[in-house]
Amino acid sequence: MSNPQVLRRLKTIEGHLRGIIRMVEEDAYCIDIIRQIQAVEAALNKVSGIILEDHLNSCVITAIRGDDPAERERVLKEIQEVFETATKV
Amino acid sequence: MSNPQVLRRLKTIEGHLRGIIRMVEEDAYCIDIIRQIQAVEAALNKVSGIILEDHLNSCVITAIRGDDPAERERVLKEIQEVFETATKV
Amino acid sequence: MSNPQVLRRLKTIEGHLRGIIRMVEEDAYCIDIIRQIQAVEAALNKVSGIILEDHLNSCVITAIRGDDPAERERVLKEIQEVFETATKV
Amino acid sequence: MSNPQVLRRLKTIEGHLRGIIRMVEEDAYCIDIIRQIQAVEAALNKVSGIILEDHLNSCVITAIRGDDPAERERVLKEIQEVFETATKV
Repeated sequence: MSNPQVLRRLKTIEGHLRGIIRMVEEDAYCIDIIRQIQAVEAALNKVSGIILEDHLNSCVITAIRGDDPAERERVLKEIQEVFETATKV
Repeated sequence: MSNPQVLRRLKTIEGHLRGIIRMVEEDAYCIDIIRQIQAVEAALNKVSGIILEDHLNSCVITAIRGDDPAERERVLKEIQEVFETATKV
Repeated sequence: MSNPQVLRRLKTIEGHLRGIIRMVEEDAYCIDIIRQIQAVEAALNKVSGIILEDHLNSCVITAIRGDDPAERERVLKEIQEVFETATKV
Repeated sequence: MSNPQVLRRLKTIEGHLRGIIRMVEEDAYCIDIIRQIQAVEAALNKVSGIILEDHLNSCVITAIRGDDPAERERVLKEIQEVFETATKV
């Protein structure tokens, strides 16, 4: 995974998170902090979606077309796992 | 998708949901109702995970190995979409 | 909790869920089933929000204004718990 | 909101996020990156829960016991809103 768009988004999120830390230090209103945390989470979800898209269009295609059944199974299992975790966080 | 385990789980969830309707009719405590709704959602997430696993191991493998690039792209796009929705519900 | 709007929404969701069971029985496309399950989950989230609103405006106000500190603590703890579960399902 | 535990957790999450940025720069495996993002989201959910707990036990109690019905309504509405957003991210 080396995608300039992903890197740029993550750095923006890092700035957003530093802003939240500052809010806590400056004793901001609780609900405003929670809302900013939820915005960071939504932005992280977006990044995960972009990374998954890249992954599906590269590693997953390669593995499924490859000759190694164990590798194929591993790659598909991973997708199911990140999906299941996605429904939990 | 015709998986007896999925069908059985969905019917159990239907029974669970009917129990929640009864709780509302009988004026149960709000928080107890919310907890039961959250339990139904967790059970639905589990079913989605099972269906996705089946899908990855059948349609997705077939499409990726097939000769139709548009079909392949469609199938991968769908996975990304259900993943992105999963991070939102 | 005895709210006609909640009851009506839950019965609609029950019908939606029965439709999903039928889709599985009739061997519908996996991704279409997952999408319908995600729609049911979004509808359930909406119902939980309505129930919580009612709860905040009745039981929670009563408990916080009441003279029983243990009851007050219990009611606030419950809200935190359903919030924490909500971030996980 | 000025809670040393919240501040400490957010700074740990900031370090975690910087680690993820490094993973992307060093071209780490997509799925490993997604898993780390999901771990950061779970940690952020935990922080939100702690902040909400503080909020319920301070501002919310004050507002509900206070004499201003508009303020009370505002505070309860906010809780419902962060709950509804929590079920979406």
